[in-house]
Amino acid sequence: MLDAAVTVFADNGFHVASMDEIAEAAHISKPMLYLYLGSKEELFAACIRRESARFLEAVTAGVRPELSPRDQVANGVNSVFAFAAEHRDSWVMLYRQARLQQPFAQQVMAVHQQAAGAVSQLLQRSAWGNHPAEHFDSLAVALVGAGEALIDRMLDQPEPDPRATAQLLIEFSWHGLGGRRRSDA
Amino acid sequence: MLDAAVTVFADNGFHVASMDEIAEAAHISKPMLYLYLGSKEELFAACIRRESARFLEAVTAGVRPELSPRDQVANGVNSVFAFAAEHRDSWVMLYRQARLQQPFAQQVMAVHQQAAGAVSQLLQRSAWGNHPAEHFDSLAVALVGAGEALIDRMLDQPEPDPRATAQLLIEFSWHGLGGRRRSDA
Repeated sequence: MLDAAVTVFADNGFHVASMDEIAEAAHISKPMLYLYLGSKEELFAACIRRESARFLEAVTAGVRPELSPRDQVANGVNSVFAFAAEHRDSWVMLYRQARLQQPFAQQVMAVHQQAAGAVSQLLQRSAWGNHPAEHFDSLAVALVGAGEALIDRMLDQPEPDPRATAQLLIEFSWHGLGGRRRSDA
Repeated sequence: MLDAAVTVFADNGFHVASMDEIAEAAHISKPMLYLYLGSKEELFAACIRRESARFLEAVTAGVRPELSPRDQVANGVNSVFAFAAEHRDSWVMLYRQARLQQPFAQQVMAVHQQAAGAVSQLLQRSAWGNHPAEHFDSLAVALVGAGEALIDRMLDQPEPDPRATAQLLIEFSWHGLGGRRRSDA
């Protein structure tokens, strides 16, 4: 039922999406839909919870302490880009709709902050010099911001290539623009 | 008058802000406000136009062709971070309000894309290897996404430090995480 709801929300937006459509897409009756999942607001909130939990899992899936920091960053980025490409509706619902709409925006912002927090922890554990935690928090915010912008752009392309797009972010994050230049010269 | 309107919009959001408040803040009568600037929608759109033009100017101000690519990126980033810190209301109105609200979101998105386009041009002119234009467009989107996320975070800090925050983005963009590690080791 939640899958059907995510698709209908992603296609139409929260305001236009109707419980009739969702019930039809889920092949259940509207009274049953209300019974199981409550109001449209509650249903939307439940969709946001489930889909954002999946995104967080994707971010953290690749982050295994036995790997090098570079591989952990690379795995996390690859994993979340692949997830976004496979679950375009989830991204559209979270990033293009829920994020832009009170009261749901708070819920999405909290997930965004959890993701940035996880990335910051990873960078801190890797112990890049003696920087204050604040420094890693900022780097993590930059990295997550870059990743979100790239995913959103990728999903508007006719044939999204999550592997190549993730690779671009990984190389950029690791070597920066200057590094690329040297290696290309 | 636009300055007063930007402040009132930033403080209250488009829906809650009233033409009465704006007229009072601008020290003119409400009929005069309507006469000069039209409806609240038109006034909000005019504020978005002016403030986003200022941000674009700030982005491009530092980008002088006689400088090295690194200095051009550094100047552009410093300039836009300093502008954001000085004009917090403009940022709040554009990024936290207009961007999240139809029909204004389109207007803000167009500016965002112009900024990314300008950054992409800069990266292309610097001729980092033989990449297709698409590659630079993606890098520019990543860089602008990282910059927006960092600015937004900076403006919630008790004492925003645009110079230090810009420096962090410049170093990250130029050397990446890997580069930082080497230089810190």
